[in-house]
Amino acid sequence: MTILKASVLDADTGDLRVVVVPRNIASANELRGGSRVRVVSNSRFATAWVIVSEKDGEEVLLSKSVSSALNNPEKIELRVHSITPSVDYIKKKLKGFKLSEDEIRSIIRDITSGVLGEAEIATFIAAQTSVGMDIDEIVSLTKTMVETGNTLRFEEPAYDIHSIGGVPGNSKVSLVAVPIIAAAGVFIPKTSSRAITSPAGTADTMEVFAPVSFTEEEVLELARKIKGFIIWGGTLNLAPADDILIRVEHQLKLDPTSQMVASILSKKLSMSISNLIIDIPTGREAKVESIDEARNLSSLFVQVGSKLELSVRCAITYGGQPIGYTVGPALEALEALETLMGSGPMSVKEKAVALAGLVLEAAGVAPRGGGRKTALNILESGRAYQTFLKIIEVMGGNPHVKPDEIPVGRYKAEVRAPIDGYVTGVYNNALSRIAMIAGAPQDKGAGLRLHVKRGHKVREGQTLLEIYSNSESLLDEALRLVEVLKPIVIEGMLLETFPEYL
Amino acid sequence: MTILKASVLDADTGDLRVVVVPRNIASANELRGGSRVRVVSNSRFATAWVIVSEKDGEEVLLSKSVSSALNNPEKIELRVHSITPSVDYIKKKLKGFKLSEDEIRSIIRDITSGVLGEAEIATFIAAQTSVGMDIDEIVSLTKTMVETGNTLRFEEPAYDIHSIGGVPGNSKVSLVAVPIIAAAGVFIPKTSSRAITSPAGTADTMEVFAPVSFTEEEVLELARKIKGFIIWGGTLNLAPADDILIRVEHQLKLDPTSQMVASILSKKLSMSISNLIIDIPTGREAKVESIDEARNLSSLFVQVGSKLELSVRCAITYGGQPIGYTVGPALEALEALETLMGSGPMSVKEKAVALAGLVLEAAGVAPRGGGRKTALNILESGRAYQTFLKIIEVMGGNPHVKPDEIPVGRYKAEVRAPIDGYVTGVYNNALSRIAMIAGAPQDKGAGLRLHVKRGHKVREGQTLLEIYSNSESLLDEALRLVEVLKPIVIEGMLLETFPEYL
Repeated sequence: MTILKASVLDADTGDLRVVVVPRNIASANELRGGSRVRVVSNSRFATAWVIVSEKDGEEVLLSKSVSSALNNPEKIELRVHSITPSVDYIKKKLKGFKLSEDEIRSIIRDITSGVLGEAEIATFIAAQTSVGMDIDEIVSLTKTMVETGNTLRFEEPAYDIHSIGGVPGNSKVSLVAVPIIAAAGVFIPKTSSRAITSPAGTADTMEVFAPVSFTEEEVLELARKIKGFIIWGGTLNLAPADDILIRVEHQLKLDPTSQMVASILSKKLSMSISNLIIDIPTGREAKVESIDEARNLSSLFVQVGSKLELSVRCAITYGGQPIGYTVGPALEALEALETLMGSGPMSVKEKAVALAGLVLEAAGVAPRGGGRKTALNILESGRAYQTFLKIIEVMGGNPHVKPDEIPVGRYKAEVRAPIDGYVTGVYNNALSRIAMIAGAPQDKGAGLRLHVKRGHKVREGQTLLEIYSNSESLLDEALRLVEVLKPIVIEGMLLETFPEYL
Repeated sequence: MTILKASVLDADTGDLRVVVVPRNIASANELRGGSRVRVVSNSRFATAWVIVSEKDGEEVLLSKSVSSALNNPEKIELRVHSITPSVDYIKKKLKGFKLSEDEIRSIIRDITSGVLGEAEIATFIAAQTSVGMDIDEIVSLTKTMVETGNTLRFEEPAYDIHSIGGVPGNSKVSLVAVPIIAAAGVFIPKTSSRAITSPAGTADTMEVFAPVSFTEEEVLELARKIKGFIIWGGTLNLAPADDILIRVEHQLKLDPTSQMVASILSKKLSMSISNLIIDIPTGREAKVESIDEARNLSSLFVQVGSKLELSVRCAITYGGQPIGYTVGPALEALEALETLMGSGPMSVKEKAVALAGLVLEAAGVAPRGGGRKTALNILESGRAYQTFLKIIEVMGGNPHVKPDEIPVGRYKAEVRAPIDGYVTGVYNNALSRIAMIAGAPQDKGAGLRLHVKRGHKVREGQTLLEIYSNSESLLDEALRLVEVLKPIVIEGMLLETFPEYL
């Protein structure tokens, strides 16, 4: 096909890739509206939907999503969407066969370049869910996701911690653990994600203190200035296939283990991490509900890591109720800061020193079995707090931040105990949904503060929970959701009467 | 959300559903470009992609695909794409559980209304492929596909024949069988499809003789005029979920049995068919390759049919090589006409009278076991031919059509036998691909004519195959594909020499 002039469509199509083709060009090239076409410029290409304009013209209009994928070209070629063998490989997996590294590479390349659409990607995820993948396949998946993206290289060995997530209140833990590790002189260039299905990702919570989006050059500069930082990985083009896969997984509410393992390890390998501690919160309503399942997952992480020269150790932690007492970016940031300053809840402090301690052992700066104690010393001495302020400063935030300056939601509501009794249930999923309805994570001040945890004794009328929001109407909705979901269950001594009514 | 003015977007987006929203309206309603939105008008709705225009304005622009789905509204509401439980049901199926009728109904409704996108539909197809469905589920699938579409009702019991397809040259069989059945006084309102992955659908081939697109009212009028007709089902909104599912299946190259059974039976129930003969071509490179598999599929069709008050009988037929000698709409139309006129190949005649005979038995106009003979009499007496001419006339075609007036491709190439020997292979898939590369079914004159079938003895230089096209360059491509695919294999007595070369 001939070379065509291209400019940018004057509209916002978000992620949707569209090319508007004048009628004369469409008819000369047998392009139909609603079909898929490959837009090619130099060696780059992107697949887009065709919209045929009713007018004749000289140039095609690329949506911003297409134009930027191709480095804003002024000339392009359109090629009819070619048939790729990746579709056959996906079908092969779905029918229960093992895929080779080359087959997986073909799929991942075609996902990255946009040759495979949502339908094909969904089928790949479905195949992983129903058929599964073995160690070799997960290794290939991880490797090819790294290959198809950017890799950052640092001057010293890089360590990291990562939680598989699923427990509300967990994003604050890294904000305590990373400064401990950095204060011990161990390099930890932590990239993290924003929340997709939870009230706060680590990047959202860190952003309460400082900007978290950096270019590759800026990240390398950060690494020269300080031993640790917590940034958002989204701008660095690390394993970009993963971002696409995660979006489709979220849409389908599927999260196959093989893809989760490859997703986490590929992001870490792209940051040249050589030594990784993975936190697997385990318990009722966590991602992993039993210790056996957690052990199997740990073994998978360790085996896949070892084939990719990434040393992995897993920490199975208690995830049956929230970590600490707060949920939502600002509220979690606050609790992290209090923990670094010496107060803060026991569960946050314990989890942070446990994970940091494992890194210190791996790096050889604490003796085997002595990591926790070394980490606790660093935290209690105030060195971790000082390092955290330094991290904030280097990342461009305010190093003089005080807990009472952290802006939590303007509006607040309280939920009180309806009876005397004991707290027998504090439910992760319900609390996450309530915090999200209140506005988290987009509204950084939205979220909740628990006043009780499982096993606590309460009196009728005592505060169980405060909900924060910057929107009065969302706060009302969150309160209504409390009625429906009953996130905290109190049981008294009197369980029922007979007859039920008098 | 407030009521908005709507008009039609001045561009062709094909099936792609798009709504262009002015910047001010998008920002007032928190709509982002590239997100999904539900466009609502009266009780109808359609899901569309949002494109945010850079200009402010008073009205949204609906792509034709959206506008016509909503009956061309002037006012609409936009609602943020709601979460549907169907996603959970698809996930449940993928994990191996059985779905209830209500769950399947939710999925099918959401597919029909556009709430579920390609990714979700692909996952549903993948789940059917890897997990499968039992009889109850296929019954529910069929029933709910019928419910979500239009049903035509006739004044007399309706009979039909349907082939599951997969064998080139098969589309001509109905053109012979339907007139035989109608000539016997049995009502057969046959709807058929256009080719998606084959060189000719029955609708494509019938269209060589007469228009095949009719409105519901016109179809009811046809039924009052004549006992049989062959039309395209695409304009009648019969089981519309099926059309969407078939498109995604084709994209993924998947064709799960449960969906195939539901697809066929739902279309027939939507036409109020009470008695159906299903042709299952069986053999190498047919959809079904073994008799055992054909028997299992037959049993499935019969069981699902019986729960839906549709009496089904299956005919397992030989499908290991093409039916008759021609492939492609005009060439197959020609062979059908020749067969009705008394010449034509034995395989076409035999298959048509076999299938028609089973209908005649079901309708009680031929004794049990005597259908074939009755059908053969009707064909050989010329009554089927006269009825076919009447069908053409009623459908608006030329009832004086002669075989030599059927326009086959202007360009023709011959493929000759390279050696003396016996024809040991005539390959379905290769022949279909060659006919399609030559231009079929869009180019109705494109296709091929075999001069030999399996077992024939040939002399070096004898014609094996003619290829027809209206494009010289496509004809060249088809010839190149013959070299690669070797659709007809001749084996002589000398199988190899040693050493291979002198």
